[in-house]
Amino acid sequence: MQLGIIGLGRMGGNIARRLTRAGHQCVVYDAKPEIAQGLAKEGMTPARDLAELVQLLAPPRAIWIMLPAGPITEEAVETLGRLLSSGDALIDGGNTYYKDDIRRAAALATRGIHYLDVGTSGGVWGLERGYCMMIGGPKDAVAGLDPIFKTLAPGIGDITRTPHREGRDPRAEQGYIHAGPAGSGHFVKMIHNGIEYGLMQAYAEGFDILRNKASEALPENERFDLDLADIAEVWRRGSVVASWLLDLTAISLAESGDLAHYEGAVADSGEGRWTLEAAIEEAVPANVLAASLFARFRSRQDHTFGDKLLSAMRFQFGGHVEVKEPGTAADAPK
Amino acid sequence: MQLGIIGLGRMGGNIARRLTRAGHQCVVYDAKPEIAQGLAKEGMTPARDLAELVQLLAPPRAIWIMLPAGPITEEAVETLGRLLSSGDALIDGGNTYYKDDIRRAAALATRGIHYLDVGTSGGVWGLERGYCMMIGGPKDAVAGLDPIFKTLAPGIGDITRTPHREGRDPRAEQGYIHAGPAGSGHFVKMIHNGIEYGLMQAYAEGFDILRNKASEALPENERFDLDLADIAEVWRRGSVVASWLLDLTAISLAESGDLAHYEGAVADSGEGRWTLEAAIEEAVPANVLAASLFARFRSRQDHTFGDKLLSAMRFQFGGHVEVKEPGTAADAPK
Amino acid sequence: MQLGIIGLGRMGGNIARRLTRAGHQCVVYDAKPEIAQGLAKEGMTPARDLAELVQLLAPPRAIWIMLPAGPITEEAVETLGRLLSSGDALIDGGNTYYKDDIRRAAALATRGIHYLDVGTSGGVWGLERGYCMMIGGPKDAVAGLDPIFKTLAPGIGDITRTPHREGRDPRAEQGYIHAGPAGSGHFVKMIHNGIEYGLMQAYAEGFDILRNKASEALPENERFDLDLADIAEVWRRGSVVASWLLDLTAISLAESGDLAHYEGAVADSGEGRWTLEAAIEEAVPANVLAASLFARFRSRQDHTFGDKLLSAMRFQFGGHVEVKEPGTAADAPK
Amino acid sequence: MQLGIIGLGRMGGNIARRLTRAGHQCVVYDAKPEIAQGLAKEGMTPARDLAELVQLLAPPRAIWIMLPAGPITEEAVETLGRLLSSGDALIDGGNTYYKDDIRRAAALATRGIHYLDVGTSGGVWGLERGYCMMIGGPKDAVAGLDPIFKTLAPGIGDITRTPHREGRDPRAEQGYIHAGPAGSGHFVKMIHNGIEYGLMQAYAEGFDILRNKASEALPENERFDLDLADIAEVWRRGSVVASWLLDLTAISLAESGDLAHYEGAVADSGEGRWTLEAAIEEAVPANVLAASLFARFRSRQDHTFGDKLLSAMRFQFGGHVEVKEPGTAADAPK
Repeated sequence: MQLGIIGLGRMGGNIARRLTRAGHQCVVYDAKPEIAQGLAKEGMTPARDLAELVQLLAPPRAIWIMLPAGPITEEAVETLGRLLSSGDALIDGGNTYYKDDIRRAAALATRGIHYLDVGTSGGVWGLERGYCMMIGGPKDAVAGLDPIFKTLAPGIGDITRTPHREGRDPRAEQGYIHAGPAGSGHFVKMIHNGIEYGLMQAYAEGFDILRNKASEALPENERFDLDLADIAEVWRRGSVVASWLLDLTAISLAESGDLAHYEGAVADSGEGRWTLEAAIEEAVPANVLAASLFARFRSRQDHTFGDKLLSAMRFQFGGHVEVKEPGTAADAPK
Repeated sequence: MQLGIIGLGRMGGNIARRLTRAGHQCVVYDAKPEIAQGLAKEGMTPARDLAELVQLLAPPRAIWIMLPAGPITEEAVETLGRLLSSGDALIDGGNTYYKDDIRRAAALATRGIHYLDVGTSGGVWGLERGYCMMIGGPKDAVAGLDPIFKTLAPGIGDITRTPHREGRDPRAEQGYIHAGPAGSGHFVKMIHNGIEYGLMQAYAEGFDILRNKASEALPENERFDLDLADIAEVWRRGSVVASWLLDLTAISLAESGDLAHYEGAVADSGEGRWTLEAAIEEAVPANVLAASLFARFRSRQDHTFGDKLLSAMRFQFGGHVEVKEPGTAADAPK
Repeated sequence: MQLGIIGLGRMGGNIARRLTRAGHQCVVYDAKPEIAQGLAKEGMTPARDLAELVQLLAPPRAIWIMLPAGPITEEAVETLGRLLSSGDALIDGGNTYYKDDIRRAAALATRGIHYLDVGTSGGVWGLERGYCMMIGGPKDAVAGLDPIFKTLAPGIGDITRTPHREGRDPRAEQGYIHAGPAGSGHFVKMIHNGIEYGLMQAYAEGFDILRNKASEALPENERFDLDLADIAEVWRRGSVVASWLLDLTAISLAESGDLAHYEGAVADSGEGRWTLEAAIEEAVPANVLAASLFARFRSRQDHTFGDKLLSAMRFQFGGHVEVKEPGTAADAPK
Repeated sequence: MQLGIIGLGRMGGNIARRLTRAGHQCVVYDAKPEIAQGLAKEGMTPARDLAELVQLLAPPRAIWIMLPAGPITEEAVETLGRLLSSGDALIDGGNTYYKDDIRRAAALATRGIHYLDVGTSGGVWGLERGYCMMIGGPKDAVAGLDPIFKTLAPGIGDITRTPHREGRDPRAEQGYIHAGPAGSGHFVKMIHNGIEYGLMQAYAEGFDILRNKASEALPENERFDLDLADIAEVWRRGSVVASWLLDLTAISLAESGDLAHYEGAVADSGEGRWTLEAAIEEAVPANVLAASLFARFRSRQDHTFGDKLLSAMRFQFGGHVEVKEPGTAADAPK
């Protein structure tokens, strides 16, 4: 079927490719015109602006926005909300905050436009592996776009079937679900990312302990000089901690066991923060998800003000000197 | 080759089976004689006691102990240490604390007996999937037992090969590694379990937030009644959080979405605790692994004394009454 | 000077008393008329509604709202915003979210009304000890109300003077500060409460470990049956952990060493949650404050859904049975 | 009465001074002879070695060891164990691990020597304020040394009396307790320090959030430039978070609001670690105490290996580049 796609970066471009290769007709737009033009060679129809994109689509239209969450996406939704007509569908495939989805869906519904929020996981591997999609929006609109979702999803593949799923929605096994009304797709994707932070941090801490087992701070007969690459690899085989993230860990460690070229300053995106806020709103204890987020905050600082306050208190009650220049201890506050 | 196996429970029995099916000759013993007798039908040689088991094996012998970690395993090691001869090998496949391995290996080495510690992951699925093994001990002894390890391991199977592994130890891809000297096998297995706790808790918290998104404590237009079984299923397909633990989660949720038959009181074993102690010894921050362990401690209590102390302070400074019987507020301390 | 006070509960009533006793003239209102009438005997002027309260005050008026944060306070602010005139001052002494203060102050400023947010700490002890106040709002309006703040504050008392404070704002030593523009008073009070949660939880965990040192799970020669009341008391004398919260702990433990009449289900209010959200907004790692909040969430549940999911995974991978009725293990999912 | 004191550093020297000033007779020894000689002018009797110190004391002797915990203290205990006689008392006032106390006490008891472990809090302020002491050991030996403990303790002073203490051990109000048998004194002191870490971290996080409220990452109308010194000061007056640690915080912040001369690398001593191990042994959840310890571990590292592993995973699944030299992104693993 026909689909408009706005935003042709790493994710949007590959989504357009995967759809086109499967025979769908994609009308594409990017703020950088040369990107849309470039995709014309791969069989897509480039549009010069949003208005042209809308004109190039036959009603009822469906447009997939794949832009950075925040003001850029917001502006595209507003502009398209004015250009589209009753019966059209607008899909936000980015990482929008789900409360924004709820607001937008209500606003667009007054004009008969369907709003779908599609949490999309897959990263740079999606073109090849397919995308895992968590969809929020009106039931009929979701159903109408099923050919798109089915193509983008990974499909059953050779992944073991889960027992006891007889009678359940078959789409989940294909790699996409209709989670519920507007906002629910991004909510589920948000929690997905929150869990992702937690899983990553669990591996990070475990491998950190493995690595520091060679530390000279330990008694000599209790030190081990472990091969982290082999450990990651062996855990992929029959262990309880096997996962896709472990597969990626094994790749990285096989390349470079000490990961020395990485800075160690780790970014975080909105989802990890919003997950924590959702936990707070629901009064759900979430120590692991919180600690995972805080580890990233901490990784981007040399020292916190809080650390310095600890040193200050220690100086006051015990005379412990933890100043910048050991030689300047005498200059420390008395 | 020939192997003695002591302890024929869920793990030991299946290890014996997997080896026997592959043509190895297993001499087996269990404290309950009928268990060893029962396995005779499957082609194994039952022994009535440890002395007989040793006699039934041709030197150089190899004996695999698969008993609960602690005094029971310790006693078996001591007894066998007396019965075995120089050149024999003793394997502890249980979840022994790695510092005990270091001690035992040194003691047995004085008599020429090789001690191997084999961290063994696989649970009830091992018979079919194979066991992931992390082996500590002398290089030659580990090499001599390679046929056993190769048979028990899952093998390469259809798991994607990790790039950049050219020139690395090929055993890791088969599902077993020689981690280093005595103790290192169980150390790596211990950290594996520590990570396992962290991964499990990350999923637990995430699904808890998903489930409570239907809570009536939230504004009505922000509630979602999510299908957790479908969410677990869809995440198995192309998402970042795909893992074996998620596969198991999907099975459980497909059976029973509310998990109501589970008590919610979760046991912990030594590995999670020792992992935290290793982090402390190495001065590695491990908030996620710690929080995962503490969540299990907490799950086994109705209320902590600490909780009550919070209420007591709140009563003292703010007059907040959080007593057992709301009607007895008047009886609370003034 | 003259002050209107709205809301005569535990906090508002005592504020009115402390001011009246010092010679200020209080016009008081409460939704329950008998409460305001009752205070007439103590020298205050009761008002029957907000309009009368405004009429009873001479311009420029100052009105202190001491109501539960949320819709009730919001409504009072809106009503008074309509009744007051340019040059009047409106004080919110409750626990309002500081972003609401910023919004209200901007709205009221368009009509020339000054808005002050006063974070007020002191609880049931405030009448006697005085109130610690953190004030946000326009500099001149804060200065104009100084007689009120000075009376409510504890004053220097016999608390040791902090060295190095020469040249600093003397109000801090009296027990009140002008923190900055609207919102900053409640922001500082919010962080105060966040810290309070952390301090309380630190004591709670420590005393929990002390109490469980008598546990039969420990080796007999490592158990101690400790007197928690005496420990709390001795720590008040020259130790590093001496604090007002410890003073209160000592009182509670002296009354009842096992705190058995407390339920152990601990409430939390908005400030602890908002503190965590502020940490997230500022990307400040706050593991202790987060864990303190989550401990309260957890204290109000018997078992979490997350706990049950852990048991479900453990059943799936290891056959561990953690079901509600041990006898029904056979009925657990296979 | 007469007391031998070994180790005349910051703590031991002041303990000797406080006792001598009160009329007790102190025989003192330090590994640096000039230190003991120096104290002779203040009325103490210097000893040149442990043997002489023992000779200078009349039986039944009492000797207080105030040395760094670990091998130095252990050696002193062993040497003195040989030099002392039945009925003598050996006091370890340092921060020894309580399980070492239990072991030592049992060994010395076979020779009739009493062993006391005295957890001593007070730091550099002890000479003036007195020391808070938590004492483990035999009841009679503790009673016999009461004059020493009473002199060292702060006494009731002007600290408010705790209600409901009628009939309780009056020593707690003086600032010392007999906690129980050998080891219990250091156990209580250990938990004291664990709580201390938690309290300190709660303040550290709270002030960190206050300080970062001026961050340019926040919307301009939500930023506050707060005076942390005044905030610490005002909280000392009638707020819930008033404490001795806050008094010290107020001093430090009054000196230097940005604490810029502190490095931010914070040491930890054994007690914080042992507290966590005690929590693990007792299965007590202790998220706050753990997070406090981990914050210190983290403060001493620029970046953790775990942080780098997070970046590696992010590169693998999302192409996110977090390498050391932004310009070398092309050299990052593909």
